Amino acid sequence: MKKVNTTANAAIIVIGNEILSGRTQDINVSFLCEWLNDLGVRVTEVRIIEDNEDSIVKNVNELKNKFKYIFTTGGIGPTHDDITSKSIAKAFNIKYDFHKEAYEILEKYYTPEKFNEGRKKMAKIPENAKLIYNPSSGAPGFIVKNVFCLPGVPSILKSMIHGLKDKIIGGNKILSQTITIQTVESEIAQSLEDVQKKFKNVEIGSYPFFRLGKIGVSIVIRSTIKNEIDECYKEIVNFIKKNKIQMGEK
Amino acid sequence: MKKVNTTANAAIIVIGNEILSGRTQDINVSFLCEWLNDLGVRVTEVRIIEDNEDSIVKNVNELKNKFKYIFTTGGIGPTHDDITSKSIAKAFNIKYDFHKEAYEILEKYYTPEKFNEGRKKMAKIPENAKLIYNPSSGAPGFIVKNVFCLPGVPSILKSMIHGLKDKIIGGNKILSQTITIQTVESEIAQSLEDVQKKFKNVEIGSYPFFRLGKIGVSIVIRSTIKNEIDECYKEIVNFIKKNKIQMGEK
Repeated sequence: MKKVNTTANAAIIVIGNEILSGRTQDINVSFLCEWLNDLGVRVTEVRIIEDNEDSIVKNVNELKNKFKYIFTTGGIGPTHDDITSKSIAKAFNIKYDFHKEAYEILEKYYTPEKFNEGRKKMAKIPENAKLIYNPSSGAPGFIVKNVFCLPGVPSILKSMIHGLKDKIIGGNKILSQTITIQTVESEIAQSLEDVQKKFKNVEIGSYPFFRLGKIGVSIVIRSTIKNEIDECYKEIVNFIKKNKIQMGEK
Repeated sequence: MKKVNTTANAAIIVIGNEILSGRTQDINVSFLCEWLNDLGVRVTEVRIIEDNEDSIVKNVNELKNKFKYIFTTGGIGPTHDDITSKSIAKAFNIKYDFHKEAYEILEKYYTPEKFNEGRKKMAKIPENAKLIYNPSSGAPGFIVKNVFCLPGVPSILKSMIHGLKDKIIGGNKILSQTITIQTVESEIAQSLEDVQKKFKNVEIGSYPFFRLGKIGVSIVIRSTIKNEIDECYKEIVNFIKKNKIQMGEK
């Protein structure tokens, strides 16, 4: 598979034992990937790791220089297993203490008797981090250099993400087109490979599906160059028609 | 978070641009994690990577000596973007060619006129790999040393996994108990941390939920030692009752 020509890439680090135990189905990765894709940022690696300081520090340090953006999800809540803020501070060797602006936000959000130790902990953020505002539940996320730290609860993550748009500088937008056909992959494998060889700047993916008694293949063409997608699309439709394969779902 | 005392760990490598583009929601990870958990194998890292030979080789080589088992999903079909078999062969420096047993299986599965180049490609598997039989669609997965290669289509993966049980030697089984309460995390953070400090061999996770108008927290206790779970459970229930927090969902 050829790499699409774009300079803005990202990695996601999902922090959470609940994902690794299988208890919780992650849905933040697909949401973030699509959202970034629309901004011209290509996610090329995701890691799901434990709520463990050493793992977080190691993975952040391994990835932060390889990618333009790193997004972390999870571990910024009030309980003992929420150790993302502390670990990010350690990874960057930055002081981890009460963040003035975060503290003020939370102080305003809660009545004095509700602003307990657990809630105060959510104001502990690496020094000088920029905040990511949280319209759902007060407690902010934060940005240290190119690392964006978001919560794990999907509805809260979604509510926070839109404020980030102007902080992301994408490359060329990755365009895509899908062709669905009523056949199995083996019937088109050779023709598809021939087309792929002709279009070096296009990434052609072939995804079989078996759902509700329907069998077929979705061919997905991706590129940052619209013209190449159009040309590639034409060639694929040509061989589909030539081979009398039905298009669309049954 | 303390690590649960078990010697059998695993990592999963999800191979697929369709997951990284956000087009497809992965559901294999949670399935594999739960299945392995039941066998006493703890998944402590997942990586989602591109359909790219260099990435596959690099990640397999990075992880294969760190984990007892590696599972890969995706990329073992007939099309040009299915490069897992070839890449695993490269990672282990093994010949990649037609695998006699796999070839025979596929030859029997298809009529001669249907056994085309695409289908033959699925018999190309690293030399001497053990096969993972596929009761759904013929094409086998395979095992090279501690690396188990499975397909990406969830229904096919599920149908193949049960044949693997006797090939996995787990450690102590990871037991878990969940307590659901009607409050928010901040109200229990301190008490929960105190309990965590007392039980070094137990991993306590706190997971807030906001669904269908219900707000609450699931506290999950995990350990390989049943007695410790029971003791820890009692202590948590004690502080919940003492603080007059409702248990169960509203």
